[in-house]
Amino acid sequence: MKDLLLADIGNTYFHIYDGQKVAHLSYDDAITKYAKSPLCYISVKHQLSAKIAGMKNWKDISSLIKLEGEYETMGVDRKALCLSHENGVFIDAGSAITVDVVQNSLYSGGFILPGIRAYLESYRRISSALDISLDQALSLENLPKTTKEQISYGIIASIKALIQMHRDEKQLYFTGGDGKFLSTFFDDAIYDETLVFRGMLKVIKDKKIC
Amino acid sequence: MKDLLLADIGNTYFHIYDGQKVAHLSYDDAITKYAKSPLCYISVKHQLSAKIAGMKNWKDISSLIKLEGEYETMGVDRKALCLSHENGVFIDAGSAITVDVVQNSLYSGGFILPGIRAYLESYRRISSALDISLDQALSLENLPKTTKEQISYGIIASIKALIQMHRDEKQLYFTGGDGKFLSTFFDDAIYDETLVFRGMLKVIKDKKIC
Repeated sequence: MKDLLLADIGNTYFHIYDGQKVAHLSYDDAITKYAKSPLCYISVKHQLSAKIAGMKNWKDISSLIKLEGEYETMGVDRKALCLSHENGVFIDAGSAITVDVVQNSLYSGGFILPGIRAYLESYRRISSALDISLDQALSLENLPKTTKEQISYGIIASIKALIQMHRDEKQLYFTGGDGKFLSTFFDDAIYDETLVFRGMLKVIKDKKIC
Repeated sequence: MKDLLLADIGNTYFHIYDGQKVAHLSYDDAITKYAKSPLCYISVKHQLSAKIAGMKNWKDISSLIKLEGEYETMGVDRKALCLSHENGVFIDAGSAITVDVVQNSLYSGGFILPGIRAYLESYRRISSALDISLDQALSLENLPKTTKEQISYGIIASIKALIQMHRDEKQLYFTGGDGKFLSTFFDDAIYDETLVFRGMLKVIKDKKIC
């Protein structure tokens, strides 16, 4: 298992984990770089299926990722994320933000929000007056009084309020491109970019595959 | 004042109030229909300014709408809305959703969220798998387990959670195209499509204009 490469093929990037660190590549770069490497992967990028099927050393384990309580169209990356710990609220903040609640290894449901970039784009499309970049120094202490802050507050505080509502005593686990940034708005949140891979590793060990 | 027509020229529609009911027209239809009618208006549609300036019987009262505590770029329609009652949380659910808090006629700040249509479009742009219409029968009781419900829940429950956080003991006032629908998710909320016009009327009476 020491040299096992794991890949999570997402909507935008090819994420790869060598047991030490995670790298994020374009599909083409990843295919060129890892063509001959033994590799286990999951994928939500169905447009790539035909291309990847030809890779002799790559093994698709998507169909083996099963989460108790899952729903039919649930993305395999979300299921792997939810398998990383037996209890918690799992937040993947990428192009979309998925929030999933797991209790005693049982999936109890979740919700989906736009990713931060998608939020900003949606304001921009409504009116050029709402075309702002996120206020990186945003404070949630007081209701703001500028357009830039009122939009930034709207995005971050609404995401936070709904996650807090479902937190109860559970640990918050963040992953994804905006996971680190988003986690700074919560007390005692864990950011870990290897969570999806930890879920994959659990399945690989349980089923003795790869 | 009995026959006074009031218009609120928004980003998408021309809203007009005759003291009885509110109508929503396209700009062209409104200009044709009311060209010769005496009318007081506010406008956030600056692209129309030149065209409207030629209307002899129309009076722009935008610069007279002043809210204590307002910020510089605050839309005149939001200010008029906030003037409609001395205390409350004012929600205008249109192409964007603005939420503003007023205490003793003093503006204490607010936030801006995408409108419901803008939310749905932002999911659609992320992935065709997230292209859904809002679940009109959505319940917020339990965390859902289908894509359609998880997106609908994400939109409505995140908007609701942040508004509730700022409600305290204040009355919620909803207006705008999605205001009626959104108000059904709150206890004791008031939906009133005349709120912006009530704010305008207050200014007109105070300043004895129009």
